[in-house]
Amino acid sequence: MTSGTPALEWTDLDKKAVDTVRLLAADAVQKVGNGHPGTAMSLAPAAYLLYQKVMRHDPTDPHWAGRDRFVLSCGHSSLTQYIQLYLAGYSMTLDDLKSLRTWGSQTPGHPEYNHTPGVEVTTGPLGQGVANAVGFAMAARRERGLLDPDAAPGESPFDHHVYAICSDGDLEEGVSAEASSLAGTQQLGNLTLLWDDNRISIEDDTNIAFTEDVAARYEAYGWHVQTVDWTNGGTGYEEDVQALWDAYQAAEAVTDRPSFIQLRTIIAWPAPSAQGTGGSHGSALGDDEIRATKELLGFDPDQTFIVDDEVIAHTQSVRDRAAEQRKTWQESLDAWTSANPERAALLERLKKRELPDGWDADLPVYEADAKGVATRVASGDFLSAAVAGLPELWGGSADLAGSNNTTPKGEPSFLPPERSSEKFQGDWYGRVLHFGIREHAMGAIMNGIVQHGLTRPYGGTFLVFSDYMRPAVRLAALQELPVTYVWTHDSIGLGEDGPTHQPIEHLAALRAIPGLDVIRPADANETIEAWRTIMGNTDRPSALALSRQNLPTFPRGTDGYAEASLTARGAYILLDTEGDPDVILFGTGSEVQIAVKARELLAAEGIAARVVSMPSREWFEQQDESYRNQVVPPTSRARVSVEAGVAFGWRDVVGDAGRIVSLEHYGASADYTTLYNAFGITAEAVVAAAKDSI
Amino acid sequence: MTSGTPALEWTDLDKKAVDTVRLLAADAVQKVGNGHPGTAMSLAPAAYLLYQKVMRHDPTDPHWAGRDRFVLSCGHSSLTQYIQLYLAGYSMTLDDLKSLRTWGSQTPGHPEYNHTPGVEVTTGPLGQGVANAVGFAMAARRERGLLDPDAAPGESPFDHHVYAICSDGDLEEGVSAEASSLAGTQQLGNLTLLWDDNRISIEDDTNIAFTEDVAARYEAYGWHVQTVDWTNGGTGYEEDVQALWDAYQAAEAVTDRPSFIQLRTIIAWPAPSAQGTGGSHGSALGDDEIRATKELLGFDPDQTFIVDDEVIAHTQSVRDRAAEQRKTWQESLDAWTSANPERAALLERLKKRELPDGWDADLPVYEADAKGVATRVASGDFLSAAVAGLPELWGGSADLAGSNNTTPKGEPSFLPPERSSEKFQGDWYGRVLHFGIREHAMGAIMNGIVQHGLTRPYGGTFLVFSDYMRPAVRLAALQELPVTYVWTHDSIGLGEDGPTHQPIEHLAALRAIPGLDVIRPADANETIEAWRTIMGNTDRPSALALSRQNLPTFPRGTDGYAEASLTARGAYILLDTEGDPDVILFGTGSEVQIAVKARELLAAEGIAARVVSMPSREWFEQQDESYRNQVVPPTSRARVSVEAGVAFGWRDVVGDAGRIVSLEHYGASADYTTLYNAFGITAEAVVAAAKDSI
Repeated sequence: MTSGTPALEWTDLDKKAVDTVRLLAADAVQKVGNGHPGTAMSLAPAAYLLYQKVMRHDPTDPHWAGRDRFVLSCGHSSLTQYIQLYLAGYSMTLDDLKSLRTWGSQTPGHPEYNHTPGVEVTTGPLGQGVANAVGFAMAARRERGLLDPDAAPGESPFDHHVYAICSDGDLEEGVSAEASSLAGTQQLGNLTLLWDDNRISIEDDTNIAFTEDVAARYEAYGWHVQTVDWTNGGTGYEEDVQALWDAYQAAEAVTDRPSFIQLRTIIAWPAPSAQGTGGSHGSALGDDEIRATKELLGFDPDQTFIVDDEVIAHTQSVRDRAAEQRKTWQESLDAWTSANPERAALLERLKKRELPDGWDADLPVYEADAKGVATRVASGDFLSAAVAGLPELWGGSADLAGSNNTTPKGEPSFLPPERSSEKFQGDWYGRVLHFGIREHAMGAIMNGIVQHGLTRPYGGTFLVFSDYMRPAVRLAALQELPVTYVWTHDSIGLGEDGPTHQPIEHLAALRAIPGLDVIRPADANETIEAWRTIMGNTDRPSALALSRQNLPTFPRGTDGYAEASLTARGAYILLDTEGDPDVILFGTGSEVQIAVKARELLAAEGIAARVVSMPSREWFEQQDESYRNQVVPPTSRARVSVEAGVAFGWRDVVGDAGRIVSLEHYGASADYTTLYNAFGITAEAVVAAAKDSI
Repeated sequence: MTSGTPALEWTDLDKKAVDTVRLLAADAVQKVGNGHPGTAMSLAPAAYLLYQKVMRHDPTDPHWAGRDRFVLSCGHSSLTQYIQLYLAGYSMTLDDLKSLRTWGSQTPGHPEYNHTPGVEVTTGPLGQGVANAVGFAMAARRERGLLDPDAAPGESPFDHHVYAICSDGDLEEGVSAEASSLAGTQQLGNLTLLWDDNRISIEDDTNIAFTEDVAARYEAYGWHVQTVDWTNGGTGYEEDVQALWDAYQAAEAVTDRPSFIQLRTIIAWPAPSAQGTGGSHGSALGDDEIRATKELLGFDPDQTFIVDDEVIAHTQSVRDRAAEQRKTWQESLDAWTSANPERAALLERLKKRELPDGWDADLPVYEADAKGVATRVASGDFLSAAVAGLPELWGGSADLAGSNNTTPKGEPSFLPPERSSEKFQGDWYGRVLHFGIREHAMGAIMNGIVQHGLTRPYGGTFLVFSDYMRPAVRLAALQELPVTYVWTHDSIGLGEDGPTHQPIEHLAALRAIPGLDVIRPADANETIEAWRTIMGNTDRPSALALSRQNLPTFPRGTDGYAEASLTARGAYILLDTEGDPDVILFGTGSEVQIAVKARELLAAEGIAARVVSMPSREWFEQQDESYRNQVVPPTSRARVSVEAGVAFGWRDVVGDAGRIVSLEHYGASADYTTLYNAFGITAEAVVAAAKDSI
């Protein structure tokens, strides 16, 4: 044992509890007939150690603000977490374990956020959890900075640790590599990642695909790295829990770097035949093997779901320890509350995700301007105007800050001060995030930041690179996390960088994601209104698609133009006709101006066209039917949409009689006006389509 | 100089040529007003060294089979490649350089495959090129194995080297990490990656986001790593070309590992003010700075696009050297051709991407079977049956081989023999790929394999994880590469793993990608026909969406069921009515059986329903109008589609009067029959929708 670290108490009852865990895992998978028993068995001592000895948490209050956080990145081994929740006395019963992977149960195949008390994050898609944990650790620092910046290290009620467990697969995925590199740069001393190094994945021996020196890689990232080898170099398996305890203590003592613990295990230990096999990873062990394992461990092979009363009484004593820890913590919080009434009020507000009164009183309003501004610039203006009143709003870019306009004026970077550059001043508690060219980690880290509880992150890149972060976007939508994506350069309007950088299909592909709001503002004022609406939503991610190029600022409230506040409706009549329109023109973002111009051309020919600006289909679908019918009367069948992207999905809006002005192929490298003309995204094309539709 | 390596000749003319490169880069960006001059300037000596001294290539024949391959992963620095193509005498003129980033030019913003002679791959989205290069190196080994497996190392006309240049951004992206780890496992001695370590990206100093020890990371991957520091530890910049040459020679001498060369540079060197700045990365330098640089280098500041006759004559002499190399190579190839007539015929066939006669004579045909088989199993059957006749077809999975059924029976793995496992026998020239849990690298590596020229790869994962590889899928579509994705577990039919693993929106999101064929077969026989059709296509990627669960095998050619060969049409009448149908039911994949059952239920109520199986919307859209109208008469407006995914995009098919049986939310963890019923993807729902539509 490292001298000076607390002693580990590990009795026969603990050992029995660990064996109980293994057999519960085997039985649960066997009962439903499918699942992942192997890791839950061999990792039982490690998970038990965390939940029973290492982590500070309160089974009676999974949302206790003083708790350490736990992320099971290898979500397929959900039993690793469920069984610990059960033993520790969370709202998880033996019957829940018996209902594993069945309809309506507390114990779905992978842990699900907002579904099972004690689960902090939905995991399963590999690599994500590692990046989520990095987000947790970053959020913890930022939140401490907002609430208790001057406390000595470890002395604040807002100090806690983030623990994660991951598998081989998590570390093969690029997203974990991206996030881990950034965690090194950020010197996240409050993060400890345990790697279950069992050298088995679904294709069995990982030697066929994963031969790198992972520990050396994490050292290269600047992490504190330790190895605990329960295989003793292959000479004989011994679950040296003391060594793992020591490693956790050492990790906690290192506060200037994140910690990585390589734990060498044998999967499905100690099942006599299944141990060390790929089969045990993702399949039930079979009755015979489970019987043999029970006999080996001194359990009754004829019984299933065996939990000795003595065991459960012992493990649920974590509640008593929690009550004690909580008492001390509450005193610390009370003292903080008395000393910091304003911050305490802030904490209450942030917990409820409420916006302060008048937060949006001074948002920019743009005068009519034919030359206009790019919507990405307006978005940057919003951030600069809004951040003073919204300390919870923070974010940055995947190395495109200047292009994405994601840096609010005068705000420091969230960065160890020693990492400051000429352009960016680092502050431990800073606000501007530098993700590096790591879109995927950016997405997953933002999910972790939101899940941690108090703040609201945004992250920018080019819209085309939303593809790089798509798995994290999907998880934000699935978990209903209020993350905001600032995706600029949202069409061929990007110009010279060419087809690799020009999104064509992305708006459609993003609209297809359930629970994601996609918003493409038409001008600067719509952009402000879009942000205002986004900030009011707390249960879903929002994606802003913003222009690189200047867009005219429409003369709101004059010349027949509607107010920009209607943006919140998702679609609205920007310019109407007198009487019934002959045709309705729908546009989004930079193409609304094309619809406006087409309306003029049509008017010259005596055709009355209504222009509907449709920044967000999702928001429009949430409006009541009468509003929707007012904007788009079902009887008005002549309709044209114009958007510089694929038509896919637009038929819903324009109907059988409608026409879609779209782009069904990739772009090209040239200035954007050339591209719009060459590809026929023009007012003339809209006019022709309108006549065709009427 | 390392002893024993060839000597480098580097004259004043070479130096002048390098300076010419820098100024051409500055002038080209200045002329168009946007672009990336900095890297092209500072990397000029390295790129020149490669094209003029290191690589074997023939400017008069960019497709010469004996050439080394070059990948510019940092595609934004496209001038790095364009200018070398110009100097070496490819079909690239000074006027082309003057047309940088303009409509119709040979010199788009990023290098584009099949657009500019000498460009092997489209790059720009960062990290992809590194993975493409790994794919090149793997393909080179596989192709050698098919054509000349017994030649001594370096003695085959099919031996060549793969060179890549990458930037900081490439190495921050997870996809390069994934591919580089795999390259280490695969011991790709034919690959050398140069990292332009200039510590500048768009957000300026990379110290704010990229502080890891990259060289140590590549050592951890098992690469041979060298560092060449032109900054001399920051004491003074000296472009020590000899040291870089030595590093390339040493890299070539190491044949049991890929090589990584860290080249420490100062971006935009030697521009007096712009050097070392973030501004020089992505913006024109400005006239004054360019003048100053020209003066510094002894060029006339009043001229632009300066190329001394002596310089171009010198650099184009690479053609003469190529002619000599080619003579020797041709002799070697001729000798091989005489000795290997069958393999020579194979080479000719592979070059044309033609299929051999009768290759598909013995593909499986499945008898009618109500219990049926999963389409993923049928896909595996296809592979096992087809590989004997198609040596070009190879592939594997991102660690889901058993689930994706991607391992043809009896085939060895593409793997150093020492990496063999109990389950997989490794062979240097093997056929089964083990990507590890690295979907993104899998996608990008497959692109590189196709681009290398002779073979056709496939790669498998769960459909939901198509998101992880989406940037590479897009690039396959953009480049028209015949890659095949084997995406199984294609709906809530996956069952117990729950919402993180159940694709809902993926079919829609993939159909939105221009140039990608999405095919979702309804039964085993459709699966075989889908593969047959895919193999006949050479200009586009194909995505198979396959079921986890068994699907009934329809009784083809009896009981009114159409032949499965109609699969190639994309949609066809599976079961018709007598006379005009009252309603048309569209289904894809596992939901076609639901449409069939609904047809029976409707028939019992006297409603005549046609069932259209629609495995591929893209294929159907390629059919002539008369066929399309025959399958879906425009006058038949009562239509219902059923697919266990979002409705997005289906309105095109069913029209205003149609109804869509779909899933607009995420799934859940339970057995799949429960899910289909709970979520209303049932025959009863189709019946109700049909009545509603009529």
